[in-house]
Amino acid sequence: MLHFNSDYMRGAHPEILRRLVETNDEQTTGYGSDEYCIRARQAIFEACGLTEGKVYLLVGGTQTNAAVIDGLLYCYEGAISAETGHINVHEAGAIEATGHKVLIVKSRDGKLDARDIDAYMTDFYNDETHAHMVMPGMVYISFPTELGTVYSLAELEAIGEVCRRWKLPLFIDGARLGYGIAASDVTLADVARISDVFYIGGTKMGALFGEAVVVTRPVLLPHFTSLLKQHGALLAKGRLLGLQFETLFTDDLYFRLGRNGVEKAMRLKQVMLSKGYKLHIDSPTNQQFFIVPNADIARLERVATFEFWEPRGATESVIRMVTDWSTTDEEIDELEREL
Amino acid sequence: MLHFNSDYMRGAHPEILRRLVETNDEQTTGYGSDEYCIRARQAIFEACGLTEGKVYLLVGGTQTNAAVIDGLLYCYEGAISAETGHINVHEAGAIEATGHKVLIVKSRDGKLDARDIDAYMTDFYNDETHAHMVMPGMVYISFPTELGTVYSLAELEAIGEVCRRWKLPLFIDGARLGYGIAASDVTLADVARISDVFYIGGTKMGALFGEAVVVTRPVLLPHFTSLLKQHGALLAKGRLLGLQFETLFTDDLYFRLGRNGVEKAMRLKQVMLSKGYKLHIDSPTNQQFFIVPNADIARLERVATFEFWEPRGATESVIRMVTDWSTTDEEIDELEREL
Amino acid sequence: MLHFNSDYMRGAHPEILRRLVETNDEQTTGYGSDEYCIRARQAIFEACGLTEGKVYLLVGGTQTNAAVIDGLLYCYEGAISAETGHINVHEAGAIEATGHKVLIVKSRDGKLDARDIDAYMTDFYNDETHAHMVMPGMVYISFPTELGTVYSLAELEAIGEVCRRWKLPLFIDGARLGYGIAASDVTLADVARISDVFYIGGTKMGALFGEAVVVTRPVLLPHFTSLLKQHGALLAKGRLLGLQFETLFTDDLYFRLGRNGVEKAMRLKQVMLSKGYKLHIDSPTNQQFFIVPNADIARLERVATFEFWEPRGATESVIRMVTDWSTTDEEIDELEREL
Amino acid sequence: MLHFNSDYMRGAHPEILRRLVETNDEQTTGYGSDEYCIRARQAIFEACGLTEGKVYLLVGGTQTNAAVIDGLLYCYEGAISAETGHINVHEAGAIEATGHKVLIVKSRDGKLDARDIDAYMTDFYNDETHAHMVMPGMVYISFPTELGTVYSLAELEAIGEVCRRWKLPLFIDGARLGYGIAASDVTLADVARISDVFYIGGTKMGALFGEAVVVTRPVLLPHFTSLLKQHGALLAKGRLLGLQFETLFTDDLYFRLGRNGVEKAMRLKQVMLSKGYKLHIDSPTNQQFFIVPNADIARLERVATFEFWEPRGATESVIRMVTDWSTTDEEIDELEREL
Repeated sequence: MLHFNSDYMRGAHPEILRRLVETNDEQTTGYGSDEYCIRARQAIFEACGLTEGKVYLLVGGTQTNAAVIDGLLYCYEGAISAETGHINVHEAGAIEATGHKVLIVKSRDGKLDARDIDAYMTDFYNDETHAHMVMPGMVYISFPTELGTVYSLAELEAIGEVCRRWKLPLFIDGARLGYGIAASDVTLADVARISDVFYIGGTKMGALFGEAVVVTRPVLLPHFTSLLKQHGALLAKGRLLGLQFETLFTDDLYFRLGRNGVEKAMRLKQVMLSKGYKLHIDSPTNQQFFIVPNADIARLERVATFEFWEPRGATESVIRMVTDWSTTDEEIDELEREL
Repeated sequence: MLHFNSDYMRGAHPEILRRLVETNDEQTTGYGSDEYCIRARQAIFEACGLTEGKVYLLVGGTQTNAAVIDGLLYCYEGAISAETGHINVHEAGAIEATGHKVLIVKSRDGKLDARDIDAYMTDFYNDETHAHMVMPGMVYISFPTELGTVYSLAELEAIGEVCRRWKLPLFIDGARLGYGIAASDVTLADVARISDVFYIGGTKMGALFGEAVVVTRPVLLPHFTSLLKQHGALLAKGRLLGLQFETLFTDDLYFRLGRNGVEKAMRLKQVMLSKGYKLHIDSPTNQQFFIVPNADIARLERVATFEFWEPRGATESVIRMVTDWSTTDEEIDELEREL
Repeated sequence: MLHFNSDYMRGAHPEILRRLVETNDEQTTGYGSDEYCIRARQAIFEACGLTEGKVYLLVGGTQTNAAVIDGLLYCYEGAISAETGHINVHEAGAIEATGHKVLIVKSRDGKLDARDIDAYMTDFYNDETHAHMVMPGMVYISFPTELGTVYSLAELEAIGEVCRRWKLPLFIDGARLGYGIAASDVTLADVARISDVFYIGGTKMGALFGEAVVVTRPVLLPHFTSLLKQHGALLAKGRLLGLQFETLFTDDLYFRLGRNGVEKAMRLKQVMLSKGYKLHIDSPTNQQFFIVPNADIARLERVATFEFWEPRGATESVIRMVTDWSTTDEEIDELEREL
Repeated sequence: MLHFNSDYMRGAHPEILRRLVETNDEQTTGYGSDEYCIRARQAIFEACGLTEGKVYLLVGGTQTNAAVIDGLLYCYEGAISAETGHINVHEAGAIEATGHKVLIVKSRDGKLDARDIDAYMTDFYNDETHAHMVMPGMVYISFPTELGTVYSLAELEAIGEVCRRWKLPLFIDGARLGYGIAASDVTLADVARISDVFYIGGTKMGALFGEAVVVTRPVLLPHFTSLLKQHGALLAKGRLLGLQFETLFTDDLYFRLGRNGVEKAMRLKQVMLSKGYKLHIDSPTNQQFFIVPNADIARLERVATFEFWEPRGATESVIRMVTDWSTTDEEIDELEREL
């Protein structure tokens, strides 16, 4: 059986495991104060082309989003997001649990448009009753989005510009950042330059777990370690995170893993198209969405796992198939043979 | 100048002020333990046709919504609402500040439909990832709605039925309840019978301030007084609330005030229609929404105050004009003359 | 029966009621935008000797404390308080409900000492694990305290100085401010000068309800109106607050009412001492605490109401007797006669 | 250099790493739905002697405490704890961040006494103003405590009994549970029988990370998976937790690791006593607290790391030395030689 239902099904890149074993008996202090974390932060800094800023290493995406957003907002502010944003749909209300509303700006294929953010802000301040409404205090976007789409560099620059104009911190959720960079004209340095805070996803990119938060304007998140502790997001054996990110940012491993996921996704897309399935959305990244007749689903399920996304009328469904850092050409070959 | 911009512009019904003066020098205990509150609760009970349940007297609508919803929900649950619901738009995130998401079910003219709630619940539990989504834990509706519309008794019964079936407590925001009752086939007893919690608005219905929360299933809100204190929603001189609601529920004053607001609104509607303005929505209650050419607005503003609601294309706007318990025929006559 | 169990048992000063009746039929806009609020804020400004800053009018003390503290703190910070502080004991967790811990610094007779705050801060930052502890983000004191005691001007200046040194905003809960000013060498202008935020209590000082928050450093509480709305602390008919505070700050009424409460308390103290009861604490303000034999309590209860404060060994109890703005010499005379 | 400053300095027990490597290429579904988690839960069930209940696998202690306490309490309730409780001191306000106050009952050597809990509850409900205070909604204790002490079975039974009498769920923080079991007459089955919820610490007991929450009365924590997701406490690659706990509960590994930590601690204690240092507290578990002259500290620091606990007068300090699952006899021998 082939598995394409998510990008966190295997353990970790072998090099990460090798180093875990190799260093297991070392004794280090906790909570990110060790040498592995220091080196990981330095490696990330260099990869981002940053000379100042801060890097924090967390375990998972939901806790990362909740901690960053809670830290960026005043208590009466909310976070602008696409309706399909992960924080709005699949985090069980983690943002609201910190007291903040998710404010929906219209989106297309999971992406916000700078002009729509601008219009939202203009309308907000034109509304005489806006003191009774939730003040927009930041913008949250994902790169790539939940629908696998990416922003072009020009689109991202435009969002960055509108955020600066309205003094809205821009936070980029990079749970799948490596796949986005592999599939667009946007570089890691661009993401670091345009956003105020972003995170580099590890869980879906070859780590056992881990998300690296890069804060390019640290004044926005003072005493963030205390906030992380309060959120239960500070790992005791922090070096596990340091070791993983140091490994991912050695010899461009992170970028190579991203490219692998995207290359295999493009092959998978061709296989599915060649079998007559249509695209639900034309995603350039590791998440692929296909329209399949309901009659075909049972047959597909005998070949591979995938995620049922949503019904599409009475006779068709949308399914999601996901490749990742570990997908092999042999797996795609087998999919092609079996279908 | 005539004023139609809200239903909380004048002080209180004269009988309330008369009794405030008359009783001013009495000394009573605080926080709702006095005789006025006891009698007010009894009068409300009788008006609702209830034999069990609890009544709590609060100061304002936002604190009432936040306290009730916080009390009804588990920490991981959210409240279903129309997109136009007051809790979703005009309470500055008071619900989210208590940690709960407002869950939007599609609505029409401010009203939810029982079938849409049912479909939302079905879809939620059919979604394999629903443990990662915010669990719907109650339904919030307004009667009348923010757009002045009312539910028919049949519509309300249907919502009550779907709530019971899904075990969702039903909370009815009655900030303008008296106007809704005056304009529909729904009685106060119906509201009490169908909902689990509702409130009887005083602020917009002739009181200086005050909202009476009626809990028909008290097991849903145990120790609610502690919760109110925690929310800063327990008035020290509670008798001020007791005295006002006792007065409103003596000799059907509350219902008479509701009818006055609606009668004057119907006259106001005829005046505006006769002047050639069109309805934005056909509201049977004290809030009226008209489409006016932008060119007319300056002229209208010389005659009366009203609320600018929203633009409607390039040349027209929607305005809201509101009557209330204190509006007089003379005021409507004057409006007619002046236009 | 005489009543000494709290300072919020009567309605309001007659002048407030007179003006409520007189202005009842006026129509004003809501939420504090009316002329009464504007004039009240101006009168408070002048009484405080302020030339800049902001004044917000709220309904009750718990909501005021919660809103101010929530606004002053980052999400990971807590508020320093005496163990007996109202926010720590009698607000049902309203501060924690906004996500903030109340941090206890040792106190004596309800009062904090500047040196103890300083030592607490020094210890906090000396602790290697302080990033895992709640960061002190402000200081909360009451003037007078829950035990009726007052700070001298020198004590208050010292606290102000230590707060500035540690960059801790100082918030003074003035629920009974008028009684404290009448009983100390501290003036309203001193309170305004030394604190960053404080409030002038109305509920216990002759108003039906109302607390006036004075923000002398508005940068600390940006967009506070939105925060108040979110906290359910924005009164719709805001003019009721404006009218009351305008009245209280006309012809020094507020200060006269404070002096009355204190004068009557001093007489009450002498009566009780003359009857052989001992002081539990020597309070110079309107709250008086006496040690009474348990055997006497039933007899006392036939004469007057009071609050049972706490047991004191097996045979005695501490009771609290409270005068207020409305207590008359006749009431004290009667107490003397009846005992 | 020897390291005794915490019990989370090394990686994991080698068997855990061996299995991580062995299973790395397997593909499993996420969030705890995999076979490793199923088997881990079963193994824990059996070790606890439970036939019903639920087990949830989390990453760290602070997130575990916050999630469990948030789930157990109504919004207006607080958690009873010793003043030294981890939730009160070293979690940066994680409990308050969920809206709940930590209520302090007096303690001795980090332990609560059933009679003191009983007295606290009696006093609470005798207080006429208790509706204005935070209602105690559960009891939190640690086993062993932050000071290394353990409850005897009789003490634990007494606490369980008083909790049942007052209908207070009892939650036991077992971050170091294995060391407590090795050092007392309390078994894992006792803990499971007496508490309503407890957790089995992995991070300090040989796992890379992980805490297993055992809910013996699942009705107290309905839909806990949603709550965990909301708290950011649901690990994507959940099998990492399953694999670790399955390993720890195979062949009694968990208990053997606990015994090792305690045995080495007892040896360490003898070494220190033999060198003339005195005990600050007589701990039977893996945390040892010694009184050392300040003049000796520099010399000690050249031999081993430890934690500075607190000053003790002007010339002495208390230090904490911690052994763990991985401490070897050779390390203790070396300590003895070097001192």
